[in-house]
Amino acid sequence: MTLDANKKTIIVFSGDLDKAMASFIIANGAAAMGNEVTMFFTFWGLNILRKPEKVRTRKSFLEALFVWMMPRGAGRLGLSKMNFGGMGAFMMKTIMKQKKVNTMQELIETARSLGVKMIACTMSMDVMGFKEEELVDGVEFAGVATYLGEADEANVNLFI
Amino acid sequence: MTLDANKKTIIVFSGDLDKAMASFIIANGAAAMGNEVTMFFTFWGLNILRKPEKVRTRKSFLEALFVWMMPRGAGRLGLSKMNFGGMGAFMMKTIMKQKKVNTMQELIETARSLGVKMIACTMSMDVMGFKEEELVDGVEFAGVATYLGEADEANVNLFI
Amino acid sequence: MTLDANKKTIIVFSGDLDKAMASFIIANGAAAMGNEVTMFFTFWGLNILRKPEKVRTRKSFLEALFVWMMPRGAGRLGLSKMNFGGMGAFMMKTIMKQKKVNTMQELIETARSLGVKMIACTMSMDVMGFKEEELVDGVEFAGVATYLGEADEANVNLFI
Repeated sequence: MTLDANKKTIIVFSGDLDKAMASFIIANGAAAMGNEVTMFFTFWGLNILRKPEKVRTRKSFLEALFVWMMPRGAGRLGLSKMNFGGMGAFMMKTIMKQKKVNTMQELIETARSLGVKMIACTMSMDVMGFKEEELVDGVEFAGVATYLGEADEANVNLFI
Repeated sequence: MTLDANKKTIIVFSGDLDKAMASFIIANGAAAMGNEVTMFFTFWGLNILRKPEKVRTRKSFLEALFVWMMPRGAGRLGLSKMNFGGMGAFMMKTIMKQKKVNTMQELIETARSLGVKMIACTMSMDVMGFKEEELVDGVEFAGVATYLGEADEANVNLFI
Repeated sequence: MTLDANKKTIIVFSGDLDKAMASFIIANGAAAMGNEVTMFFTFWGLNILRKPEKVRTRKSFLEALFVWMMPRGAGRLGLSKMNFGGMGAFMMKTIMKQKKVNTMQELIETARSLGVKMIACTMSMDVMGFKEEELVDGVEFAGVATYLGEADEANVNLFI
């Protein structure tokens, strides 16, 4: 017997390509199997949701520096291991293309079409220096209390 | 319907500033919402609980070397990404101060006052070379069986 | 009151020695306490299950390069922090030997004898370029749907 077997949450803390892929493959798999899925993006994970183009925003010098040093969106993520300044990520993306595995951008698109709820953590947006308009459309904004409310109703809760 | 919705556990494996912050923000949020929260510190996560001052203990040469190379307490943690020998952590702490976000030390203090149970994993203390007197007050000591007992009663269990 | 308190799942995404140890210590502890445990190995975690000897397989150039750069089996894993080109892992293994803590190979052996189910993620095997014959015996092969089915029945689900 299982309980609330139709709800899952994933905290996406990491902004690495490999961990982002794992997060969306699990989320999309669960959603395709009829689950209600909430992804809560925090810290480096926010980079996955960044718009690929530059967005002008008011930032302090330190915020601007911090944000500038981080990858702008799902297409520019690195690997958590063996990235070698982007070579590793490029190799993995090349292999994925050869095998017709979905790209990160396609995984996000699928998540959206399957109704996966994507929430950006407002507190880490503040600490990292991100403004709402820098993230892709369809993202909701909330804090840890919202996450905990969702997790209370889920039977699988992961931190990635 | 939810079950045991008032208990959460977090394994704090990482000793990085960003992941330590995430752990305590979730733990404190859950405790503030009336949950019983257990944090189980293991491997690098033990560094978060180290006393900031030097503590004299009997150690083998390898233990002493290992312990000496790790950060002494919550005030000296680095970032998991973009640390640049401490510059990244310093930048993030500066931004946090400007935005009046709680420091790690304040987060630990809050956890204590909210009754969050902090357990140090005795097995990894042994492997890493830590003695009980090197950790801050109020920490309990136990092994994986204790963690599993707590996790069995919780509805959210994270590994960070 | 707890539900399905006798089932646990762990996604082993990391191939670092320290995280691999944590995964198996939790898995073996839970199995020893009478739990049904499923470990789902994906991405770098697949390296933990590699046979230590070279296995001849047909691979594309990129696959061969990728696989060649990764550690061949549980005996060659590095630490997630302070690895220093293998020195850190060597130090930790030396300390573990002095303290008679189980090696990774022994932990895997124990898991097997306790009936822990080890599943290799077929999708990441494909992306990383691994063939079935490169992994140790007793491993099952399945995808994310199998993981989600197991997780639905478990009361503790971790991502490591």
